[in-house]
Amino acid sequence: MALIVQKYGGSSVANAQRVVDAAKRITETHKQGNQIVVVLSAQGNTTDDLIDQAHEISSHPSKREMDMLLSTGEQISVAIMAMAVAEQGCQAVSLTGQQAGIQTDDVHSHARIVELNGDRVRKELDSGKIVIVAGFQGMNENGDIATLGRGGSDTTAVALAAALKADLCEIYTDVDGVYTADPRIVSNARKLKDVSFDEMLELASLGARVLHNRSVELAKKYNVNLLVRSSLNQNGGTIVREVAELEKMMIKGVAYDKDIARISVMAVRDIPGVAYQIFSLLADAGINVDIILQSIGRGDTKDISFTIARDQLTDTVDLINRNLEKIGAKEVNFTHDVAKVSIVGAGMANHPGVAATMFKALAEADINIHMISTSEIKISCLIRADEVEKAVAAIHESFSLGG
Amino acid sequence: MALIVQKYGGSSVANAQRVVDAAKRITETHKQGNQIVVVLSAQGNTTDDLIDQAHEISSHPSKREMDMLLSTGEQISVAIMAMAVAEQGCQAVSLTGQQAGIQTDDVHSHARIVELNGDRVRKELDSGKIVIVAGFQGMNENGDIATLGRGGSDTTAVALAAALKADLCEIYTDVDGVYTADPRIVSNARKLKDVSFDEMLELASLGARVLHNRSVELAKKYNVNLLVRSSLNQNGGTIVREVAELEKMMIKGVAYDKDIARISVMAVRDIPGVAYQIFSLLADAGINVDIILQSIGRGDTKDISFTIARDQLTDTVDLINRNLEKIGAKEVNFTHDVAKVSIVGAGMANHPGVAATMFKALAEADINIHMISTSEIKISCLIRADEVEKAVAAIHESFSLGG
Repeated sequence: MALIVQKYGGSSVANAQRVVDAAKRITETHKQGNQIVVVLSAQGNTTDDLIDQAHEISSHPSKREMDMLLSTGEQISVAIMAMAVAEQGCQAVSLTGQQAGIQTDDVHSHARIVELNGDRVRKELDSGKIVIVAGFQGMNENGDIATLGRGGSDTTAVALAAALKADLCEIYTDVDGVYTADPRIVSNARKLKDVSFDEMLELASLGARVLHNRSVELAKKYNVNLLVRSSLNQNGGTIVREVAELEKMMIKGVAYDKDIARISVMAVRDIPGVAYQIFSLLADAGINVDIILQSIGRGDTKDISFTIARDQLTDTVDLINRNLEKIGAKEVNFTHDVAKVSIVGAGMANHPGVAATMFKALAEADINIHMISTSEIKISCLIRADEVEKAVAAIHESFSLGG
Repeated sequence: MALIVQKYGGSSVANAQRVVDAAKRITETHKQGNQIVVVLSAQGNTTDDLIDQAHEISSHPSKREMDMLLSTGEQISVAIMAMAVAEQGCQAVSLTGQQAGIQTDDVHSHARIVELNGDRVRKELDSGKIVIVAGFQGMNENGDIATLGRGGSDTTAVALAAALKADLCEIYTDVDGVYTADPRIVSNARKLKDVSFDEMLELASLGARVLHNRSVELAKKYNVNLLVRSSLNQNGGTIVREVAELEKMMIKGVAYDKDIARISVMAVRDIPGVAYQIFSLLADAGINVDIILQSIGRGDTKDISFTIARDQLTDTVDLINRNLEKIGAKEVNFTHDVAKVSIVGAGMANHPGVAATMFKALAEADINIHMISTSEIKISCLIRADEVEKAVAAIHESFSLGG
């Protein structure tokens, strides 16, 4: 008997038919003799509808209240799914994040899980039930509901798999695995049979939509076996694990991210400690910074630019503007007309030709590069948002990644 | 500084404009120097939409899961209202039933409040916040969400008013008080300035839609001052309190209830203990029985008929059918083609002419009476459902209750 965590995304529970299909898959796995924990996102457009309702009332709703509001989406999903599973003849119980013992910090809308008490889930599993947990949410130490931000349901699934020492964590989504590039952009993109945590981490943080980097980080930390597959077919999916099988191709894939924004803090003093001041300010507010670029000093000032998630743009600009004097900066400017395109693959750092190949592909496609960031296993370029598709296709082609 | 509990029903928060209107009323009362606790129902048709979703999946969904599902409706209301109140310049915090310390028994869908720990609410009030609590729900000792059934938000409001020793509990609804009869049926129905708990209790349990009997019972028990008024205007409303001011008219009003059903258990043995067996069975299942009528024995058997809330009909019939042998009955039959029409007024028992006047009015309107039930301050008749409007009008007229 194995313990399996299955996570279904919003599109997998979007309507009654999809819910019933997922319920059948869940109960089949259960009837094969496995214990099952299911984690669900909100149905289809529920979250967007709730956000619209909030914005009818307030342009700047409190984050605590947004969490209170949005967490109902997942609660609806799990109650409906528990009914659907019962219709398939299995016992089921739905749990909110709080009931599932998920305790978070108090950064509303981007909370992190600080503890997971699996007692209730284990008790329900041991009584023979399929346990259906609301993703994306937990309770902070004040007893308030906090949501986990983007990819939060993946994080819930992996955290439960880790806490319960599950044998496998299956992430069901609307694509059937991890590809060398977005198949909607690159027609001959190839599905990867497996990928290492580190590679997946880069792919995820670089915008590959299938898994959020926080969930991959957590899976790596607790060595949770992940399987990414489609809820719409029976295809094999992609396994994410500690060490991927050796494949011939060094570059694992091309990823992109449009949900980013670029902020520049202009004319800060060119003295030690300025970057620290800016980024500790952001860290205290729970804002994650991605690429950072600092200009060479001009006279006694320099500019510091960085990218963040687009949905944090307003908050971040507000925060910096309120602290301009403290930072010693003149002004802040920003744009969301940017996107990030990246290549990922282990061992890349030892092959100097890789960066050159990527930059050449972009140059030949007449795409200007605004910022560059490299790591052991990835190279990212910031480009104009409307050039993303062209860039991904050109890079994918230049490395001959197609199937 | 007074502490006021304000409860708004579903129609009072049905859309963004209504929410803003209610938020203004709430903040005005706050700015007059009062502490405010707000209790909300689900918006407009939210509950019905959720029920429809459940029924797409299952014809007989589990009650625990229905409670999990339906409780989201109130949670959405309170989050949205907290945002609206903040827009009016006051600090607000929304709380689920659980967060507000409302502990229930575990009769899902018809739970009763067993304890209310007001610590969190008091803490938030003392910090200057308007506290907005989800009505209709609480948490049972298993940590599961349980809903309070019909009129549950009124009950939440009164329970909070009692626990917090509030000075006043205002119930905002879409009518502006308690009338001598339903104004939609009787055009010259008169609004009562005040009414006693006992009279209100009878009116509520007899179907007057403005307050549910459970909330009135609770208000009487803890001597909570209730004010029923409209959220759509500034009219004075009706005060419900221990002793009403003496009014000339003895009969306070005519009420009706269509949401009932009649069940008859046929041919039970005519021996002691049979009624006890039937009604303890129902009590254990949390089913409230209203009118009970037992036939005179024929030979060695008799029939026992009773009325219940219509939404409990299926459950009740199932329950009795499963226990037919134990009860020693032959069969059960039932109908929902019934309605109850009643008159209410203190001191009625000492005026024998009252019942006669009511029965005469029904006879002259050619309406047949199926069951009769009387108490110290009310007389109820069970009639055919489609004759309710005619019956209410005839009775209202016969007692000259019109304004």
